[in-house]
Amino acid sequence: MRNMRLVLSYDGTDFSGWQVQPDAATIQGTLALAIGRITRENVLPQGSGRTDAGVHALAQVATFVTASPIPEANFVKALNDTLPATIRVLEAKQVTEDFHARKSARRKTYRYRIYRGAICPPFLARYVWHYPYPLDEDAMAEAAKFILGEHDFTSFAALDPEKGADETSHIRKIFSSSWQRDGDELLYTVEGSGFLHHMVRNLVGTFLLVGKGTWLASDTDRILAEKNRSSAGATAPARGLWLVKVEY
Amino acid sequence: MRNMRLVLSYDGTDFSGWQVQPDAATIQGTLALAIGRITRENVLPQGSGRTDAGVHALAQVATFVTASPIPEANFVKALNDTLPATIRVLEAKQVTEDFHARKSARRKTYRYRIYRGAICPPFLARYVWHYPYPLDEDAMAEAAKFILGEHDFTSFAALDPEKGADETSHIRKIFSSSWQRDGDELLYTVEGSGFLHHMVRNLVGTFLLVGKGTWLASDTDRILAEKNRSSAGATAPARGLWLVKVEY
Repeated sequence: MRNMRLVLSYDGTDFSGWQVQPDAATIQGTLALAIGRITRENVLPQGSGRTDAGVHALAQVATFVTASPIPEANFVKALNDTLPATIRVLEAKQVTEDFHARKSARRKTYRYRIYRGAICPPFLARYVWHYPYPLDEDAMAEAAKFILGEHDFTSFAALDPEKGADETSHIRKIFSSSWQRDGDELLYTVEGSGFLHHMVRNLVGTFLLVGKGTWLASDTDRILAEKNRSSAGATAPARGLWLVKVEY
Repeated sequence: MRNMRLVLSYDGTDFSGWQVQPDAATIQGTLALAIGRITRENVLPQGSGRTDAGVHALAQVATFVTASPIPEANFVKALNDTLPATIRVLEAKQVTEDFHARKSARRKTYRYRIYRGAICPPFLARYVWHYPYPLDEDAMAEAAKFILGEHDFTSFAALDPEKGADETSHIRKIFSSSWQRDGDELLYTVEGSGFLHHMVRNLVGTFLLVGKGTWLASDTDRILAEKNRSSAGATAPARGLWLVKVEY
């Protein structure tokens, strides 16, 4: 048997998230069908983590085990010929059997895109959160620095016992966290050891309240310390969130 | 009564083209509903021309007549608050009553996007034609020059008596016609006095056969002279086509 590692890019708009579901199109389910059509095996690929409905990926990582002797490059071509155009396999490589897409991940990078112009181009509607109202972007940049290092992120984790069942600890380490302007877009990029369910979207929703002046940048510290989801801001919309890369 | 002129941008993916239809979401129909909700009038906006299902617009022009006293800027805001995010009103201006979006148009620019890389990013799937196979791009550039000036474009017009009913002549004047590379994209830009139904997509399908070596660039001359739709190439997919601007 071969342990195959895939790098995937997808537009999350038309999918009910990563995780397979009985009556909905998901990335994992669609990928499983495509692999099955090629290998004639019934496999469920394992991702580095779930992405929610509407969340996009530039480079998600997934693994699956197969007896198929198909060469790596042919896997890329055959999968892309089978998958819808909104899911692309960028790379397929055979890896050692101890490699696990989720457990072996050491670092993940997410980006959140906010469109600041008055009228959001229709071609960006699926990929950004349109927020044209005043924001103190400097205060948001300052707030983002408060989460650097190791913290208990309970205040930013979804109150979702089922989805969080395998998360024994809410402690995560953040390596970088910053807001940057790129033309009409305001981009938040965060790199960490791992992320809790909804964590990036809850951070963005909280930084937004700092930008609006509801809170000070330093309130981020208090919110972390309270370890209470209701202390933080609302969950930002899924469509602005991008999984940028997973490092091993 | 006021004659209002709108500039619109839209993502054609989720619409059955411009023209209103009884049981399908169209740009014209969706816009009519939004105007109706704001003015409480039953109006059908007139576009500079139809775009097919899946075709996008950076700046389509449409007009409608209204008794509403709503200021121009408020029309933009109210329409954008009512329309889906995939249709945006960029501008609303009151114009003289003799202005007609279609009849007053003097010049239109279309662009066609072909993605040449091996794997098309999922975020471009709705906006380009993915064609990763070999093409002689220089020959395509040469072929594009043959349509400059005034010609009878019967060979490039859809065999569609109903949709072409108001087209008494198949003669159009082309001001510019060129292919250019932009990274992994090959872009065709054409500017003309007007375009017949499917004309740009049929031109692209023909230039593609020149690129593949089926025809020489100079065959474009022969195809024009034959005034026969079956002399030209196949219709290129709608999703790569963009209405760039309409000039008056």
